[in-house]
Amino acid sequence: MVKQERAARTRRSLVLAAAEEFDRGGYEGATLNRICQAAGISVGALSFHFRTKDALADAVQEEGMSLTRDVVRQVAAIDRPPLQAAVAVTTELAGLLEESTLVRATARLAVERTDVAKTWASAWVPTVEYLLREAKHNGLRPGTDPSVVAVLATYLVAGAQAHIRHPKATECARPLRAGEHDSDTSTERLNRLWDIALRGIRADGEENNAAPR
Amino acid sequence: MVKQERAARTRRSLVLAAAEEFDRGGYEGATLNRICQAAGISVGALSFHFRTKDALADAVQEEGMSLTRDVVRQVAAIDRPPLQAAVAVTTELAGLLEESTLVRATARLAVERTDVAKTWASAWVPTVEYLLREAKHNGLRPGTDPSVVAVLATYLVAGAQAHIRHPKATECARPLRAGEHDSDTSTERLNRLWDIALRGIRADGEENNAAPR
Repeated sequence: MVKQERAARTRRSLVLAAAEEFDRGGYEGATLNRICQAAGISVGALSFHFRTKDALADAVQEEGMSLTRDVVRQVAAIDRPPLQAAVAVTTELAGLLEESTLVRATARLAVERTDVAKTWASAWVPTVEYLLREAKHNGLRPGTDPSVVAVLATYLVAGAQAHIRHPKATECARPLRAGEHDSDTSTERLNRLWDIALRGIRADGEENNAAPR
Repeated sequence: MVKQERAARTRRSLVLAAAEEFDRGGYEGATLNRICQAAGISVGALSFHFRTKDALADAVQEEGMSLTRDVVRQVAAIDRPPLQAAVAVTTELAGLLEESTLVRATARLAVERTDVAKTWASAWVPTVEYLLREAKHNGLRPGTDPSVVAVLATYLVAGAQAHIRHPKATECARPLRAGEHDSDTSTERLNRLWDIALRGIRADGEENNAAPR
């Protein structure tokens, strides 16, 4: 029993160390040596848990996908208008990407291992698309195509990802700051972008310029 | 003279082959062997033109940056309202990323070689920011912060880049199609996103829902 617990704990350390390594160097750049070192495990002991780099990458992606799906499910379950819910899914994902090495590694591995893995988008885009279809007669301005808004959502999340990974790649002269706060989280940034984009997308965009939160 | 011309032609082939290789595999993934093979040059002859992988990457980025600046300058020089011009810069960049391996490689190398290279954004973001500041009292809806629109522009271009590199990463169930056309270029896609986003950003967004082209 104790032995099983210890094995589970070691496996967990390995997955987290692998996520760090994949997030930083990608699939090609990651080395099993560094992963073992970070997890405090000998390379010999590694093979008890994972036989290959592929097996480690699979485990990271499995956990990252499941974490993403959980967050999406929780955010979508809150009772609110569907357009607000769709926007909230994207802003929560921006926060998740910022905070979770597992999720960042999962998104990165998904584009590097297109042959073996599901896209990270498949863990959340269907929910956003569903919510936006629901919003067609309940929140979206008449004539707004929900599928165009869905693509906008995927571009904005890609932008958030680019910003988190390489802040300079999306750097503007004047940083966006939320009021007097010194910090500017990815969630806040994305909310400010939706603020202005939604004014023309929401049915009541004219009356209320604040983005739904 | 003929010798110099031949040298210039060889150098050009090398830069283009390197761009292909960097675009596909990134800085780490690129090998001098494959670059030489694609350019039809022996590895020995390479060193006459470029001593290191770094030197090749520098040359690729220099050309890609200059190509980007040229396009931005041309697009911005067309006489039209500044908001339209800012949007046109981003949609032309989406087209440029789609068509030019040199530019795609430049954008990729810039994020991988943060220590040695200028960001790709530095070739176009200042122009977009300038145009949006100009648009503050001439095209933007009162109360719209030009710097938020500038960040939106960088996120949308990042989205276009992600879509070009990994279409599945931004894939939605219903692809965006421009009318009956079967194709859907990155420029058209981005224009459709600006269409809906601008409705709340432009001063005359209410009267005219079509995006400026």
